[in-house]
Amino acid sequence: MSGSTFGNIFKITTWGESHGKALGVVIDGCPSGLSLNEEDIQIYLNRRKPGQTSISTPRKEDDQVEILSGVFEGKTTGTPISLLVPNTSQKSSDYSEIASYYRPGHADFTFDAKYGFRDYRGGGRSSGRETIGRVAAGAIAMKILKEMGITVTAYTRSIGPVSADLSSFDQEAITSTASCMPDRAAEEKAVSYLKECMMKKDSAGGIVECRIDGLPAGVGDPVFEKLDANLSKALMSIGAVKAIEIGDGIAVSTANGSTNNDAFVMKDGHICKKTNHSGGILGGISDGSPIIVRAHIKPTPSIFSTQETVNKDKQNIEISIKGRHDPVIVPRAVVVVEAMTALTVLDACLLNMSSRLDYLIDFYRQ
Amino acid sequence: MSGSTFGNIFKITTWGESHGKALGVVIDGCPSGLSLNEEDIQIYLNRRKPGQTSISTPRKEDDQVEILSGVFEGKTTGTPISLLVPNTSQKSSDYSEIASYYRPGHADFTFDAKYGFRDYRGGGRSSGRETIGRVAAGAIAMKILKEMGITVTAYTRSIGPVSADLSSFDQEAITSTASCMPDRAAEEKAVSYLKECMMKKDSAGGIVECRIDGLPAGVGDPVFEKLDANLSKALMSIGAVKAIEIGDGIAVSTANGSTNNDAFVMKDGHICKKTNHSGGILGGISDGSPIIVRAHIKPTPSIFSTQETVNKDKQNIEISIKGRHDPVIVPRAVVVVEAMTALTVLDACLLNMSSRLDYLIDFYRQ
Amino acid sequence: MSGSTFGNIFKITTWGESHGKALGVVIDGCPSGLSLNEEDIQIYLNRRKPGQTSISTPRKEDDQVEILSGVFEGKTTGTPISLLVPNTSQKSSDYSEIASYYRPGHADFTFDAKYGFRDYRGGGRSSGRETIGRVAAGAIAMKILKEMGITVTAYTRSIGPVSADLSSFDQEAITSTASCMPDRAAEEKAVSYLKECMMKKDSAGGIVECRIDGLPAGVGDPVFEKLDANLSKALMSIGAVKAIEIGDGIAVSTANGSTNNDAFVMKDGHICKKTNHSGGILGGISDGSPIIVRAHIKPTPSIFSTQETVNKDKQNIEISIKGRHDPVIVPRAVVVVEAMTALTVLDACLLNMSSRLDYLIDFYRQ
Amino acid sequence: MSGSTFGNIFKITTWGESHGKALGVVIDGCPSGLSLNEEDIQIYLNRRKPGQTSISTPRKEDDQVEILSGVFEGKTTGTPISLLVPNTSQKSSDYSEIASYYRPGHADFTFDAKYGFRDYRGGGRSSGRETIGRVAAGAIAMKILKEMGITVTAYTRSIGPVSADLSSFDQEAITSTASCMPDRAAEEKAVSYLKECMMKKDSAGGIVECRIDGLPAGVGDPVFEKLDANLSKALMSIGAVKAIEIGDGIAVSTANGSTNNDAFVMKDGHICKKTNHSGGILGGISDGSPIIVRAHIKPTPSIFSTQETVNKDKQNIEISIKGRHDPVIVPRAVVVVEAMTALTVLDACLLNMSSRLDYLIDFYRQ
Repeated sequence: MSGSTFGNIFKITTWGESHGKALGVVIDGCPSGLSLNEEDIQIYLNRRKPGQTSISTPRKEDDQVEILSGVFEGKTTGTPISLLVPNTSQKSSDYSEIASYYRPGHADFTFDAKYGFRDYRGGGRSSGRETIGRVAAGAIAMKILKEMGITVTAYTRSIGPVSADLSSFDQEAITSTASCMPDRAAEEKAVSYLKECMMKKDSAGGIVECRIDGLPAGVGDPVFEKLDANLSKALMSIGAVKAIEIGDGIAVSTANGSTNNDAFVMKDGHICKKTNHSGGILGGISDGSPIIVRAHIKPTPSIFSTQETVNKDKQNIEISIKGRHDPVIVPRAVVVVEAMTALTVLDACLLNMSSRLDYLIDFYRQ
Repeated sequence: MSGSTFGNIFKITTWGESHGKALGVVIDGCPSGLSLNEEDIQIYLNRRKPGQTSISTPRKEDDQVEILSGVFEGKTTGTPISLLVPNTSQKSSDYSEIASYYRPGHADFTFDAKYGFRDYRGGGRSSGRETIGRVAAGAIAMKILKEMGITVTAYTRSIGPVSADLSSFDQEAITSTASCMPDRAAEEKAVSYLKECMMKKDSAGGIVECRIDGLPAGVGDPVFEKLDANLSKALMSIGAVKAIEIGDGIAVSTANGSTNNDAFVMKDGHICKKTNHSGGILGGISDGSPIIVRAHIKPTPSIFSTQETVNKDKQNIEISIKGRHDPVIVPRAVVVVEAMTALTVLDACLLNMSSRLDYLIDFYRQ
Repeated sequence: MSGSTFGNIFKITTWGESHGKALGVVIDGCPSGLSLNEEDIQIYLNRRKPGQTSISTPRKEDDQVEILSGVFEGKTTGTPISLLVPNTSQKSSDYSEIASYYRPGHADFTFDAKYGFRDYRGGGRSSGRETIGRVAAGAIAMKILKEMGITVTAYTRSIGPVSADLSSFDQEAITSTASCMPDRAAEEKAVSYLKECMMKKDSAGGIVECRIDGLPAGVGDPVFEKLDANLSKALMSIGAVKAIEIGDGIAVSTANGSTNNDAFVMKDGHICKKTNHSGGILGGISDGSPIIVRAHIKPTPSIFSTQETVNKDKQNIEISIKGRHDPVIVPRAVVVVEAMTALTVLDACLLNMSSRLDYLIDFYRQ
Repeated sequence: MSGSTFGNIFKITTWGESHGKALGVVIDGCPSGLSLNEEDIQIYLNRRKPGQTSISTPRKEDDQVEILSGVFEGKTTGTPISLLVPNTSQKSSDYSEIASYYRPGHADFTFDAKYGFRDYRGGGRSSGRETIGRVAAGAIAMKILKEMGITVTAYTRSIGPVSADLSSFDQEAITSTASCMPDRAAEEKAVSYLKECMMKKDSAGGIVECRIDGLPAGVGDPVFEKLDANLSKALMSIGAVKAIEIGDGIAVSTANGSTNNDAFVMKDGHICKKTNHSGGILGGISDGSPIIVRAHIKPTPSIFSTQETVNKDKQNIEISIKGRHDPVIVPRAVVVVEAMTALTVLDACLLNMSSRLDYLIDFYRQ
């Protein structure tokens, strides 16, 4: 089980490595009847492309998706949707040197330890390009959720020491700025900070936050399949993520019950929460408030300054990584976080449809 | 799928609610030939019992485990091990009032939203007593890991503002102090802080940290089944956990690549890491360093001060929770974190045995 | 993965061996709101009890079920239902001899080969008593299906050379005769045949057939999760079953397309099939006709006549099995086939609820 | 969950429909280090191609496989292997008429019932072309099994009334004759019979048998994941299969225990069975004898004679199917049965590696 399948009902299987012929994903369990074409998916893939701003690598990745199956006369048929993105601009020569040693902060060593050898071209399967399949599948999940009245929005919450101020949330800035922050003032500071990092041949980390609106209370399963547990797995499975927070997150460990509890209150005839410290999840089940989740992303491990490491002949050496590398992973991870969140929430919604006997009787007796 | 099964090969299914007849777990896929008796499990269950210190509820839970199947002549047979813990001291009368309203910070509302009604006695399935099955199964996983040369150690890292100093790690204190901190000086301060909280009819949160030693490099699967992804799911599935960190965790978002990367270096003929910012996992696969994971736990939601909420008649009301409740969840969660970590790591180890063709040939050709 | 879990949404995990303390099952994913008490389950368990007729062993198994969790105020809560049946009348002394050798037709040798040793008391986990958990879980599935308008009926189709004539289907005879045949004339012949077998210290096989009525067209999934594929797995997983047929079954291999195809025809405004050679399944999906499945069951391997075998010291020996054994497995397997069929069909029905986008929109937009 | 994933550790996901752009499969969990190129897979795909003999359709399907990922420098890397076969010669015009009605014996009606509409071109996902992914994945499983010392051989056991005589097993004839029978005398009779059927505008059924040699005792899991249960599911999931037999199969229902039991006997120092009525499986676990399994395959439902059916306007009509259709499915199903058997057995072998504690200790302590 090399781990490339995600989801129970809406089940995706991704494949492909950085410098292979292509990457792709198979989506099995997509409900029939959804209008779908390549453009629906391409707009999400375009958001993860590099080479688009001053703070991203000038590397060109022309990732065009093709739908190979599962759609007929413009609609999903309920059978597997196979999506393929050819690798067109990868040059293996750029990476030949790294075959001989283990880059710090990368998975070179662990892949060798596990499998006995590795595809060293551009990180192989552990490359950031692996997320193409996630984003492509996530685009379909996003479209379905929208039809159900549910929206998922990810954005950069911080880069290095610079945090976005969410009080004047600028949604449009998420997709039009280099940092993907919903705050143009913070964006400017973040870009300055990143340029500084680049000058020092260094890199920066940051936080991606994601918000789910419109999810009714009652979705998610108790115990091991809690909605927050599955969101954590989904986001921690993205390379470079090292911490996950739900709602108040790490702040809860220094909080008190009197301030951390969210009071219930009637509002327009509905039961609501006065505050949302819980981040929209109680006991692993959605509570009707917006769901808030954050992923902490480490600095790009490929840096241009000199680093110590060992080579395959077990010698201590010094290296200095070449090639084209972003000084920060965060902005390109935003759409990946959005995709993984959408996949997780949709799957929970599908599972939820059979949770009560009266639902079954309504469905089969009508 | 109400979510009570965990693991792929070493698969556990827990059952039982706070005030039912009993709670338990079925472990399927336990390798044959392990010496096992009730005492092996009881020592872990005893660590999660309440009523043992000045900062825990005087509520008595006399949780005695019984092995019902899967062990013959003192050894596991490879068939399902069923463990049962009778509920002996639960009094349903204590909880009758809460049937009519939704306690803030609890899952009362979300269970009703999902299932249409709920077992309101002591939180039903969302009670902390649900973890009995996890701990009992984790005890078996711990014993197997030990045979394989792997140890798992969880402890309280902080309670409220008080953090343990790990420089003089006092392993023995973990199981003998009220706070489960490996630092007796911090323990004292933590107990003082908790008594203060109790006087204010309030509660506190904290951090549980867990360390895995002896796990060789190469365990865990890429992409969605990364070892850190599965650890995150495992720990986030514990009630009251709101954030997960691996290695440097949240610190990575403000770090730089030059300091966050761990240099590889030769040591005694082996490839090692000079530092362990990664927390023992790179690309989702163990890198040979100790694995470090932290869970942030919210303050006990049951507090004795007055709180606002709504009742089932959709009226705004004020409540003040009665009964016996710990002012902090953290110390009792330590053994639960240890159990979930052990279950996750063991499952990854079992899956790893078939990852290379030469392993298969060695196994089947000999 | 020792294989004791069945189902995707309505998921059961059985445990227990012939001479352990108890046997049981955990049902996870049962929809909330179903009225359920012990008697609902007991009536099915009573149907698999031995010692009730002239052709079954006089061995007494007083299998009383207890519900330990998942039911509150008489209704299922949506959380795991744990069912337990104590082993009360098993005598280990009866079986001590078989510890030293491998009984022909039994799993003694294969369990030793797999696990290194075995629980030799009464077959351990490979005993027919393992089916108690299946039958108990099946009783719940049967009750839910009934609420949905679906019935499942299994019966003995043949014993040795004696086949039931289904033209005058006597439903009541299924539960009131020794053979469980829906034909009292055949029942008489079958009982005579079995008494003959017993006199010769021999045993007989037979066929159990099962029919599902009321299942609408469209249930089941294409490719690997075909309804007939899952029914085959479900029934072949019952010990002693060696062949499975759907509809015309083995007859199709000598049939021609012109006679095997079922013509579609309008009937009362609905699309129906004129005949039912397909057994109610086309392309792995229910076609609206009754589903017909048959399981061929081998003769009881425990026979009283002398047999050749080997012992654990690798010596050829002759044995003659003692104890109390039914001359035929078929009648007691009827309720097991019914249970496994119900579990399979219910799970397919639950999965089917999320197969179309319009179902999702109806569910989440209303 | 539309059901296109098979296997636990060696997990395959197929996709594609008859007249889409391509078909394919993703294999996840393939051990690293296996030499693999397109030719290894192509030889199996060539065996399922039509248009090669007098008794198959002259339709040309030029199915060329391409490896898109998971292989580096000629060896599998342990990451997902994506295989793609373009659809080159499908003409949608041939099938336009069938959009308006339901073909008897096909899945047209059931797909419409489930999904609300269907891809009517050539059967869409329910086409025999769906098996391309199974065969491609099976080729890899076959290669791995061979390295482990295990061989899987399927062949036509009968076509209509003509059975192969296995006493002089002609292995070479399986891949060189039109019928795929290992008996050239029977082959001749089978071809005559089929020509007769074609003249009558009719079709025939038959039996595919499969034999596994070299599998050691102890593989397979008890209860629900029995090796025979999984083989049954695997083969019944192939379109047109309506019955499955293991070993003596349907004959067991009229047999007696005294003749059906296989005596154990010492042979060259090993425990063997004197006969093999069990078909190599006892209690769901391999017993060391060859495994024998048979699939009964219905006659091709597409026949040229006139048939009754209904159209989408709910009118009774008469149709006569045009196009190019084989008079028998059996010979082309042989390699599909072989593939599904290999996939099932390999997965069971991989799962088996973690069944005993001593295996774990050997693996992790060395």
